[in-house]
Amino acid sequence: MPKIEMLSANKSFGGWHKQYQHQSTALDGTARFAIYLPPQASANHKVPVLYWLSGLTCTDENFMQKAGAQRIAAELGIAIVAPDTSPRGEQVADDPGYDLGQGAGFYVNATQAPWHKHYRMYDYVLDELPSLIEATFPVSAQRAISGHSMGGHGALVLALRNPERYRSVSAFSPISNPVNVPWGRKAFAAYLGTQTADWAQYDASLLMQQAQQRVPALVDQGKADPFLSEQLIPAALSDAARASDYPLQLNLHEGYDHSYYFIASFIEQHLRFHAEHLAR
Amino acid sequence: MPKIEMLSANKSFGGWHKQYQHQSTALDGTARFAIYLPPQASANHKVPVLYWLSGLTCTDENFMQKAGAQRIAAELGIAIVAPDTSPRGEQVADDPGYDLGQGAGFYVNATQAPWHKHYRMYDYVLDELPSLIEATFPVSAQRAISGHSMGGHGALVLALRNPERYRSVSAFSPISNPVNVPWGRKAFAAYLGTQTADWAQYDASLLMQQAQQRVPALVDQGKADPFLSEQLIPAALSDAARASDYPLQLNLHEGYDHSYYFIASFIEQHLRFHAEHLAR
Repeated sequence: MPKIEMLSANKSFGGWHKQYQHQSTALDGTARFAIYLPPQASANHKVPVLYWLSGLTCTDENFMQKAGAQRIAAELGIAIVAPDTSPRGEQVADDPGYDLGQGAGFYVNATQAPWHKHYRMYDYVLDELPSLIEATFPVSAQRAISGHSMGGHGALVLALRNPERYRSVSAFSPISNPVNVPWGRKAFAAYLGTQTADWAQYDASLLMQQAQQRVPALVDQGKADPFLSEQLIPAALSDAARASDYPLQLNLHEGYDHSYYFIASFIEQHLRFHAEHLAR
Repeated sequence: MPKIEMLSANKSFGGWHKQYQHQSTALDGTARFAIYLPPQASANHKVPVLYWLSGLTCTDENFMQKAGAQRIAAELGIAIVAPDTSPRGEQVADDPGYDLGQGAGFYVNATQAPWHKHYRMYDYVLDELPSLIEATFPVSAQRAISGHSMGGHGALVLALRNPERYRSVSAFSPISNPVNVPWGRKAFAAYLGTQTADWAQYDASLLMQQAQQRVPALVDQGKADPFLSEQLIPAALSDAARASDYPLQLNLHEGYDHSYYFIASFIEQHLRFHAEHLAR
């Protein structure tokens, strides 16, 4: 069993919010995550898990502090796990930009120097973290995944490439077609190199267009999001869904922006969507 | 009309969270506040207002980002106004401690140098801010007040001294008897001077003990709060309520701490409590 250390614990809606750090093999260093365990979770009653992937500049804390998800998770009996958004530490490569390096792992396995040593968030979120969670806490292997912005991209990519691992996927304001937008092109060039053919495996729209197996997908997007037309381009995702007849529900919302005020407004619908699929 | 400048706006649960700054007479400088306007608020439909006072180190942002109150305010049709916790700026006196000076106004009118020039949060929250709010936004003069820790102290003191101004008062983890605890004694000595008789007007337990008019009061306190026995001492408040037969409901909660995870868990009950009294 890997060593795991609790950093904090707060009672929340009858359950517990806790932060942990542990030695990660995938990230070759210390990794941090937060977990919300609903009151129903016990040795005799394992609960399903929603993995939440946050966006650029975030840590394990943003979602847990700002989304207001614990109330609904406590009602539905779902655990929530929020990893950090990249490897961290002095020995980990970084970049002065907020959209590359620490806080901006993009949920890929980097192949290029200096990133390839630690930046393996794809493997971490797909395998190492769930293995640790399922060995440590009273949770089942029923998994759903969701995220925001860069994390919405990560959630969609993980579910589309691993439909057997997740019952459902959702996203708020995802970077829907990273190979065609500045955030994605900058990060993928750095982490994956200039061979753009290597980028397709991390592009939700390209993956959805060719999807064979289907994980039910829910996406919410604010129409007043300042990143909508330059970075997020959800039309690429809905076009892909139409082309492959993919079960995607995409909701556009008048007036909402890119902030956690938007996420908090609609997180209840996402949790109920996942609960429905996790119960099957 | 005083000049008022909008700093940000985010749609939230069908209403709007907005941040403003304005020139404050009471604080002799620029002051900042946040307001949540529920979807019901319009020129033809004025909504009541809950004033929220935050604790040490906080700004107008903590409650709005972390409490999850907008969902319930939107359902109930209540606006929420959250001022900053002190005057701010380079010209404003400060102290290296987190519990004195900027971020720690304690909702008093300071009488001592160097604090007396700007530190007049009592007047600001009681008079200037509501006047500005009621002249600027589609809200009624029906007011309730609540707060956390130092802000719970502030809310109780304001309501106990001005029962005609508030329909109801509530607090999370308030500094219940500041004249008898280190946080209160340090701040009151600095702001009000060493004549401890001058402190009583800002002590909720002393005020409640002698209260003539009654504002219905609800207080929630976590039993795992690390500040419980040294700084908060809610027993002083319940003793005072017993002595004056004051309508105080004090709930103690096993396992909960001093954080916003505690506030978020019980904010719904507070908003419903205030809605009931605001509707009368």
